[in-house]
Amino acid sequence: MSETYVGIDVGGTNIKIGLFDAGLKLICKTSITTDADMGPDIVINNMANAVKDLIAEAGLSLKDIVAVGIGTPGPAKYSEGILIRSTNMPKFKNVPICRILNEKLGAPVVYDNDANVACWGEYVVGAGKGVKDIVFFTLGTGIGGGIVSNGELVHGCDENGAELGHTIIYPDGRSCNCGQKGCVEAYASADSTARRAAEAIEGGAKSSLKKVLDKKGKITSKDVYEHLAAGDKLAKEITDGTAKALAITCINMLHATEPKRIVFAGGMIAAGDALLSRIKYFFNEHVWTLKKEAVEICFATLGQDAGIIGAAALAQHTKQQGKLK
Amino acid sequence: MSETYVGIDVGGTNIKIGLFDAGLKLICKTSITTDADMGPDIVINNMANAVKDLIAEAGLSLKDIVAVGIGTPGPAKYSEGILIRSTNMPKFKNVPICRILNEKLGAPVVYDNDANVACWGEYVVGAGKGVKDIVFFTLGTGIGGGIVSNGELVHGCDENGAELGHTIIYPDGRSCNCGQKGCVEAYASADSTARRAAEAIEGGAKSSLKKVLDKKGKITSKDVYEHLAAGDKLAKEITDGTAKALAITCINMLHATEPKRIVFAGGMIAAGDALLSRIKYFFNEHVWTLKKEAVEICFATLGQDAGIIGAAALAQHTKQQGKLK
Repeated sequence: MSETYVGIDVGGTNIKIGLFDAGLKLICKTSITTDADMGPDIVINNMANAVKDLIAEAGLSLKDIVAVGIGTPGPAKYSEGILIRSTNMPKFKNVPICRILNEKLGAPVVYDNDANVACWGEYVVGAGKGVKDIVFFTLGTGIGGGIVSNGELVHGCDENGAELGHTIIYPDGRSCNCGQKGCVEAYASADSTARRAAEAIEGGAKSSLKKVLDKKGKITSKDVYEHLAAGDKLAKEITDGTAKALAITCINMLHATEPKRIVFAGGMIAAGDALLSRIKYFFNEHVWTLKKEAVEICFATLGQDAGIIGAAALAQHTKQQGKLK
Repeated sequence: MSETYVGIDVGGTNIKIGLFDAGLKLICKTSITTDADMGPDIVINNMANAVKDLIAEAGLSLKDIVAVGIGTPGPAKYSEGILIRSTNMPKFKNVPICRILNEKLGAPVVYDNDANVACWGEYVVGAGKGVKDIVFFTLGTGIGGGIVSNGELVHGCDENGAELGHTIIYPDGRSCNCGQKGCVEAYASADSTARRAAEAIEGGAKSSLKKVLDKKGKITSKDVYEHLAAGDKLAKEITDGTAKALAITCINMLHATEPKRIVFAGGMIAAGDALLSRIKYFFNEHVWTLKKEAVEICFATLGQDAGIIGAAALAQHTKQQGKLK
């Protein structure tokens, strides 16, 4: 018997799966297409088969699996193992994903949302390692969040906690996709960053990004950072708007759960220090004097593997707490 | 042996002390003047003597004390039992308050900040009873905060968490005493509410409050609510500014630790439904549709006793966790 944990990271396009040993070292991993339109039975079956293939590849048996961890976007009743629905997988409705996987693999299944799982991965073996309190943001299409407080994920009363992208930083400000106004997501996600640049240009602002907008019909956050590097003034203003919005959110979380470290992940961290240094700048500008430099603000280190590592690590943590079902 | 808990609530003017039985029912209580200028040795000795008097009054002995809970304003190293300093008690510097009390009373001492202790009291036997996740605000000179997440107080990495009054709702807004700009405390504490009214009148706004300002040289939040009840338009605007600031903060905490209930305490809740109904109104105006009415927003029920009950309850909780030192 070789203590093995499975981590599964379900996205709308791909499902990533990894096997990990008791030290959370990756044994092997794979990625399969989600094929969400085939419906939950086939998708979950494909998932289970991919796990079995990995187990065989590693020379292990299903009995070696101590627990399986899985992360998906919500809304879901994570503690009950039920995916309620999914924007990217419209055929998934009230799917008892944990029970089905458990039947196919014969191991207990631990379930949480994708941002929490990635947060937990960074906490255990990535940028959040070594402290007990972190706050985690993913900067992508939207802004996802995770909170670890005193060594445990914060789930909230209905398991919808840490939706940090929808904390409000400018009341009555920009409209957010969620229906609220002034959410940090409406300013500082990759999409909102790009959109603010496009709106400024459409409003007459001068920028080297205008050519991109004219040619491609849209701007991405990657474009913004490339033109920032080339010295474009609007790209600088837009980046500062993003960084300030994130910095205010960092300050608010500092005064809420008081993390020792704040970790940013997601596609937009490819911007590197051009973004990180400005987040730190605005943090120190706006935070009270005693707290300047008190929080480490950094980028995630696990990249695309955060989800599978985090899911496996969460499965192991649940086992260690004696809470496996 | 009769299982007894002591709760001590240390303020700049008075120290309140209560004895509680195993069901957290009040046995008897007292209040002594703090006399902070006498220095920590005398103050803590007075405190211990008052506990001994209560124990005698109740026909108990010191051996009946299972644990003592104490709350003071910070900053302090609560888990180490050391009060670092206090604005209201300038002679208190790095006082090992738990060790001294322990030596005098022979029982373990549990220590936390005053807002956390009051929050815990409301959580266990007051307005927060029956749920596992609450957020707590005290509306006084400033705004204090407390968070209970999954049945435990959130302390943060340096035990300075839940400073919710200093979460920012209007970046670059009103200056706060803490040095930041745009904190909710700068808008919605009792002092800030009164100050905003005075500033508006000094700026030429018409209001029945002008007579109060001219006569007394200042306005209190109580004046604002009295004139609101009498139909004054400025008092309504000021109240709405306070309520909106608190509502935005409630939304932000909903998206952070997702409380089931949000409890407001402190002097300003004397305003009653004139304030509470407006907080709820702005909450529902600004929160995303799914979350309308999802959170119970209410006023605290323990009044002045929250501190002693909370301190005793926290001592008992620590005992139950097997964490008494």
